[in-house]
Amino acid sequence: MKVSARNCLKGTIKSVTKGPIMAEIVIDIGNGVTVTSVITAHAAENLGLKEGKTAYAVMKSSEVMVAVD
Amino acid sequence: MKVSARNCLKGTIKSVTKGPIMAEIVIDIGNGVTVTSVITAHAAENLGLKEGKTAYAVMKSSEVMVAVD
Amino acid sequence: MKVSARNCLKGTIKSVTKGPIMAEIVIDIGNGVTVTSVITAHAAENLGLKEGKTAYAVMKSSEVMVAVD
Amino acid sequence: MKVSARNCLKGTIKSVTKGPIMAEIVIDIGNGVTVTSVITAHAAENLGLKEGKTAYAVMKSSEVMVAVD
Amino acid sequence: MKVSARNCLKGTIKSVTKGPIMAEIVIDIGNGVTVTSVITAHAAENLGLKEGKTAYAVMKSSEVMVAVD
Amino acid sequence: MKVSARNCLKGTIKSVTKGPIMAEIVIDIGNGVTVTSVITAHAAENLGLKEGKTAYAVMKSSEVMVAVD
Repeated sequence: MKVSARNCLKGTIKSVTKGPIMAEIVIDIGNGVTVTSVITAHAAENLGLKEGKTAYAVMKSSEVMVAVD
Repeated sequence: MKVSARNCLKGTIKSVTKGPIMAEIVIDIGNGVTVTSVITAHAAENLGLKEGKTAYAVMKSSEVMVAVD
Repeated sequence: MKVSARNCLKGTIKSVTKGPIMAEIVIDIGNGVTVTSVITAHAAENLGLKEGKTAYAVMKSSEVMVAVD
Repeated sequence: MKVSARNCLKGTIKSVTKGPIMAEIVIDIGNGVTVTSVITAHAAENLGLKEGKTAYAVMKSSEVMVAVD
Repeated sequence: MKVSARNCLKGTIKSVTKGPIMAEIVIDIGNGVTVTSVITAHAAENLGLKEGKTAYAVMKSSEVMVAVD
Repeated sequence: MKVSARNCLKGTIKSVTKGPIMAEIVIDIGNGVTVTSVITAHAAENLGLKEGKTAYAVMKSSEVMVAVD
């Protein structure tokens, strides 16, 4: 399946922290940069997310803001 | 001002395309990876976004999905 | 690729309207119910979206609200 | 009150799972299709959401992605 | 219809600017504070949004960030 | 850092409720109006959010809906 979301950053899962409803996933995308995602705990289980696994951070363009110094 | 959004990816603006209401900003975050953002044309003007300028792609964690192969 | 987004509604594209930056896609998911999506015009072109084609409306759970009468 | 959100899918609540902050609501919209929503536990209480009750999944168009096979 | 979105700010529409797909709505919520919304042009037409009309800015809690100085 | 998000409402934190993953922040923006935000518990700790502190509710325009009576 090919999704319209324009942004897909490849990395390695650094941590998976599950709460009762939500889970926080930290993905290391290289060069010391991490991306944090919050998804449902069900989704984390369903995808089998685990530390060390390859994963992608996916973002719809309209959810991405821009900042300048 | 310090914002709660957990994700802030530094890069260089590759392109700014303005429409009547929205603008599409492509930020090169290195290693050939780009992040596309859609913000209002007013915001793009207000921040003075231009090709070649340093900028950050900012995402709230709850807007970031995770994908696996 | 398997995405964490919990919601995926299958349907047929009823219309694709492209503006300079954004595109509005209406998907008929059956029983006279339609789902409207706004994505970038680039994404619509990249996916080859056209009237009559099978497509899915995909939503992250945290973007879905609940209403009652 | 009439809201700008373009998408409103009628269904029956299949489950309500409350955590300390968030709640996961699964709505059966018919034909074996469910939509999962994550809202605050306060919102779930305030709306009186319960299994078996009629409810709507509401989504702003800019939150809906499109996917193709 | 009662929606789960926790935030509803009452104000007066200051401007409605329509593009081909999207429309930018500025709502004056009092004390010189405005809230800007981007919705589809179809939604703006459907709700009959016009300068001077009473309207509400509605936001799901998970879309609201927090910032400090 | 200057962010593209068009909306920034100043107020005083009324409550901070932390769960294992998420935290609910209620900001009083004056005139008896509150804005509720859900962010990660890590973000709440990182910003040092506490009852009585000045804070801003920040929203990207594309996340704001409009409603009319």
